[in-house]
Amino acid sequence: MLPIAPVLDRLDANLDQSIERLFGLLRIKSISTDPAFAADCRKAAEWLVADLKSIGFEASVRETPGHPMVVAHHEGPSADAPHVLFYGHYDVQPVDPLNLWESDPFDPALKEISPGRKVITGRGASDDKGQLMLFVEACRAYKQVHGKLPCRVSILFEGEEESGSPSLKPFLEANAEELKADFAMVCDTGMWDRETPALCVGLRGLVGEEITVKAANRDLHSGEFGGAAANPIRILARILSDMHDDTGRVTIPGFYDGVEETPTQVLKSWEALNETAESFLGEVGLSIPSGEKGRSVLELTWARPTAEFNGIEGGYTGKGFKTVIAAQASAKVSFRLVHKQNPDKIRAAFRDFVRARIPADCSVEFEEHGGSPAIQLSYDSPFLTKAKQALSDEWPNPAVMLAMGGSIPIVGDFQTFLGMESLLAGFALVDDRIHSPNEKYDLSSFHKGQRSWARILDALTR
Amino acid sequence: MLPIAPVLDRLDANLDQSIERLFGLLRIKSISTDPAFAADCRKAAEWLVADLKSIGFEASVRETPGHPMVVAHHEGPSADAPHVLFYGHYDVQPVDPLNLWESDPFDPALKEISPGRKVITGRGASDDKGQLMLFVEACRAYKQVHGKLPCRVSILFEGEEESGSPSLKPFLEANAEELKADFAMVCDTGMWDRETPALCVGLRGLVGEEITVKAANRDLHSGEFGGAAANPIRILARILSDMHDDTGRVTIPGFYDGVEETPTQVLKSWEALNETAESFLGEVGLSIPSGEKGRSVLELTWARPTAEFNGIEGGYTGKGFKTVIAAQASAKVSFRLVHKQNPDKIRAAFRDFVRARIPADCSVEFEEHGGSPAIQLSYDSPFLTKAKQALSDEWPNPAVMLAMGGSIPIVGDFQTFLGMESLLAGFALVDDRIHSPNEKYDLSSFHKGQRSWARILDALTR
Repeated sequence: MLPIAPVLDRLDANLDQSIERLFGLLRIKSISTDPAFAADCRKAAEWLVADLKSIGFEASVRETPGHPMVVAHHEGPSADAPHVLFYGHYDVQPVDPLNLWESDPFDPALKEISPGRKVITGRGASDDKGQLMLFVEACRAYKQVHGKLPCRVSILFEGEEESGSPSLKPFLEANAEELKADFAMVCDTGMWDRETPALCVGLRGLVGEEITVKAANRDLHSGEFGGAAANPIRILARILSDMHDDTGRVTIPGFYDGVEETPTQVLKSWEALNETAESFLGEVGLSIPSGEKGRSVLELTWARPTAEFNGIEGGYTGKGFKTVIAAQASAKVSFRLVHKQNPDKIRAAFRDFVRARIPADCSVEFEEHGGSPAIQLSYDSPFLTKAKQALSDEWPNPAVMLAMGGSIPIVGDFQTFLGMESLLAGFALVDDRIHSPNEKYDLSSFHKGQRSWARILDALTR
Repeated sequence: MLPIAPVLDRLDANLDQSIERLFGLLRIKSISTDPAFAADCRKAAEWLVADLKSIGFEASVRETPGHPMVVAHHEGPSADAPHVLFYGHYDVQPVDPLNLWESDPFDPALKEISPGRKVITGRGASDDKGQLMLFVEACRAYKQVHGKLPCRVSILFEGEEESGSPSLKPFLEANAEELKADFAMVCDTGMWDRETPALCVGLRGLVGEEITVKAANRDLHSGEFGGAAANPIRILARILSDMHDDTGRVTIPGFYDGVEETPTQVLKSWEALNETAESFLGEVGLSIPSGEKGRSVLELTWARPTAEFNGIEGGYTGKGFKTVIAAQASAKVSFRLVHKQNPDKIRAAFRDFVRARIPADCSVEFEEHGGSPAIQLSYDSPFLTKAKQALSDEWPNPAVMLAMGGSIPIVGDFQTFLGMESLLAGFALVDDRIHSPNEKYDLSSFHKGQRSWARILDALTR
């Protein structure tokens, strides 16, 4: 056991230097999507390798067909210590429109935005350079105080997260042996609010489908054929309408297979967050949850599956009017999956559901647009419990275990290629303006985030 | 009473000359939509005035802001003789693509296309110069034989029918007193087949509406908001789906007010036409009628109202997939009306129906796209009965009273501005290729069509 208190003290003492180090990384224009900045991306990777080496990591820049990866390893205090893989990304989003920035996006600064609230400004301050440096600083303090880390630590920093991660899967596959750990720690998420840390334990999966209903072999005049010829928009509307019942449940047979009820304890903790339909939907001009009745908006978006219609098109859609009966109409449909729902079975059940509603003289075509299962950590997994306690020790409010409605591909990739679950923790705030002008990261996130990772590493060894 | 037999004989004797006269009119390039042919349009009007004057009509070219009208009057044999207004149009469609014509569209010819079947070729041969000259020739023969016409006859030839009739309504309004007759005769329709003449007794009306369902104040990410935020495509699909029940009936309350059952006698006559779902829908690749169950395709398209969806659009409709919940979705909806359905009431009932299905936190906007009632002649009106008999006397098969699924605006205009019903009779065939290259008019239509109008004029006086 390595005592944690002196590590936390050291992080406090190191704060000013750690800010300077982050500034150094933030000054590198590592915009991955723009080939003009390829050299800057490499420079950021090299900067990280140098910094990790200075702490005592065995670190290297690893080539890919795109921007390089940073891979680093550090031994644990003993052979039986846990082994974690920490993931972050050093590339950033483009900065345009530049004229909306209050200061140079690559000239980071510390600013007081309200009495007592300081923030670090600059592109990447929150997403993801600030977040990944938290962990690096925690490791540095451990080494400075104890000469060792409490766990065996591997690090993977990607340089293509903001441009679709084209090299990631091949890299994971090719280096699975090297990268596999007991579990991954992914630092790309946020806090519930400024006083409440959060762990993400669920990410919904996704099935995407496009259907095209075909009727007549050409567009028809609705005067001549209306009332006799099948109208593909009418058929499509009926299919889509049939997919939900009046309580908001999806009616596709077998759709809820593998969906579990969220534990009462967890639901109660979500209730305590005081997120109401009005507060959640109010900012987008709505107020009434559209999903299954009797469930909160947090449960609906975090722990329940959905069927959504993402696009629809058919017939004449220009200005004015055309009395046409279209030859075909199409829709893009997606399902958000939770728990153990099987993407392949959902897709097959959906297609059966659609085919059963196609008249005998019409036809339907399907196009597949991806499918991935949900990620769901067990609410009572030991490492989650430990991490939760560590975060609760650091912050004013206890940590909450939340879920996310969308997906973070890396988490699925770690599952698929490395057979490894992920702990998702991060200290971003909703007002960090990531991907937008004037990105910032609260100094409290940067400071207490370092202490949080130190505490998590400590907790995992207990 | 003026004996009809010598008039018919005279028409037979005049046939070659009448063909020559039609050729003269067909050579004039009266393309109304192209300003380059304005002088040709005027020339066609003047040609008609001269020809009508030669028969004894009081005829004149009448100015409009666009191409001129031709108006002509001829007294009847007595003060109490019926007064009819005959309508046709002297303008024609453009001729491109010119390279698809087998001969010059403005150099008409008589061709034998199969043994014993001769046709007159040229732009306007069928639509509508050939059809309108039938009536002129019938009047000419009457004057030659009897020195008078059997009825009081007014004629209106328009020069803008193929370019949207911009001057027609103001002209009718300004000259209502002069043009009002007992009823109108409109010569812009066709035969059922080559041996079966037809009278059109019904034209469906139309109500056009565009609805836009609005939900969130911006496009949302379906991961973040799916299951909580209202999806306007789902709302729209439900509205459209709800508009028909499982028997194909429209469910909007009050929609069928004013719809009458077609007399059994008429339905039987339609059955005798041997148009099946397979024959009607087969050419467009369909086979199953989509409208109210238990009714034939002819009844569905001629005598039943419909709700059709002419266009729909919402969310992402490009290539690939985007997990978006759209801020809005819209559809273009039209209703074909029959009998006494009231367009204003239908529109209001539809809007109520839609509003009742909009969640309290969403909204809907409507845009009106026109509305006109159906035209329905009484199946047992005396002049229809007389005209039907006259046609049946001329052709191998008895005349059928059919209806049309679409609308012919002039018929509504005569109703609105002159308070006058219309008799729709014409001798075009489905293979006349109107509006297309190689337009033709069967010589049998041209010859027996003249005789048909002579018989109709005669019948009206009995």
